Amino acid sequence: MSSPSAAPGRGAKPPIRDALIAAAFELFPERGYERTTVDDIVALAGVGRRSFFRYFPSKEDVVFPDHERCLADMTAFLAASGADDEPVRRVCDAARLVLGMYAENPAFSVQRYRLTKEVPGLRAYELSVVWRYERALAGYLRGRFARRADGILRADVVAAAVVAAHNNALRSWLRSHGRGDAGAEVDHALGHVRSAFGAGPPPPAPGPRSDGPGDDVVVLVARRDAPVWRVVQEFEATRTAPGQG
Amino acid sequence: MSSPSAAPGRGAKPPIRDALIAAAFELFPERGYERTTVDDIVALAGVGRRSFFRYFPSKEDVVFPDHERCLADMTAFLAASGADDEPVRRVCDAARLVLGMYAENPAFSVQRYRLTKEVPGLRAYELSVVWRYERALAGYLRGRFARRADGILRADVVAAAVVAAHNNALRSWLRSHGRGDAGAEVDHALGHVRSAFGAGPPPPAPGPRSDGPGDDVVVLVARRDAPVWRVVQEFEATRTAPGQG
Repeated sequence: MSSPSAAPGRGAKPPIRDALIAAAFELFPERGYERTTVDDIVALAGVGRRSFFRYFPSKEDVVFPDHERCLADMTAFLAASGADDEPVRRVCDAARLVLGMYAENPAFSVQRYRLTKEVPGLRAYELSVVWRYERALAGYLRGRFARRADGILRADVVAAAVVAAHNNALRSWLRSHGRGDAGAEVDHALGHVRSAFGAGPPPPAPGPRSDGPGDDVVVLVARRDAPVWRVVQEFEATRTAPGQG
Repeated sequence: MSSPSAAPGRGAKPPIRDALIAAAFELFPERGYERTTVDDIVALAGVGRRSFFRYFPSKEDVVFPDHERCLADMTAFLAASGADDEPVRRVCDAARLVLGMYAENPAFSVQRYRLTKEVPGLRAYELSVVWRYERALAGYLRGRFARRADGILRADVVAAAVVAAHNNALRSWLRSHGRGDAGAEVDHALGHVRSAFGAGPPPPAPGPRSDGPGDDVVVLVARRDAPVWRVVQEFEATRTAPGQG
């Protein structure tokens, strides 16, 4: 099982590949992304042109060097899930792998964020990567929800919501120049999705608990035609109200 | 206010523009998208090359000729919202404008769907269009949720969920060759999002109703640590249970 470890410099990255990335990100701010050529990058890195294309299919790919690895990690992580894993929690954990990749190198991630905002082609590239993450999450959820009514619909909606929440927190962290606790921001955002889609933080207990039931129970009175959101709001307010329970 | 009207040939589309679209979609299945040139399209349409670029910035744009109009309609529709419009309902209605555009011409939409699945460049183009719809919905929701805790997060998540639900139903309809009731499928899918994000189908009544309250009330007993989904499930089951009310 892959872990969302964010240790910098993990494992076996080839030094030439790293040198190409470093050269590219030295040149992009100086010359602009569009005006930096692959020849410029290989010249600065001190390697031949063929070395570049051994590692990166195009200039765009050097901007996002770790997404393929991260997609593979995510796929492996989801494939290693068991039947006991609560599915929404599992895709939230899978999304955190993406955060881990960004958090490995905050300065690089912030620089890339700025570049992506400025260059429409990179924005399009990023959208296609995000779409692949979303499809990986949705594919896993479709399997887990296969027996539910509207399982495919629910899978797609939850996957999109998880990606949106993750990216909301990630962008907020990037806008703050990579300062602050990205993990806490993402956890908070993903908690929002989990409460909407019915997988609250504590897993349900496997039966009635043995401690006194009195304080553990909430009684709600609702109009039959009340909108669901109102009942949820009421429930949340009642169960967290001070002086009760 | 724009309406999601699906009348074919609505209004003032220039005939040359329509001829270019028709020519393009006659050639794409015959020759393939990549091998069809703008010159081929203008030759079949019987117009000059400059006419093409007067209407379409690129060959990709002729594949999605109505998205700009639809995005403008959506923006206008959201801008015309009042404070009384329930925000999640409003973005669902806005999403239906996109469905309306597809339903205007099912045969064309199905053909484009096939093309988009086959040509990666068109898939990327479509992702960027979908992203613009999502940002339009999120922008509106950010305004409406501005005073809520986590308003921006909620706006982004709801917009993504609405787009995912809409597209799930739209793709299902397109895969069925544009047969069946696209509107009903999309309504069902959007209802799923509205129940998750707290805007049930009937708008809340403006006060207690005058008819007898006895049958109108549901009493729920829930564990304080129950997941919200369980309470919602219980509420839905109780209020619709036969023999009650």
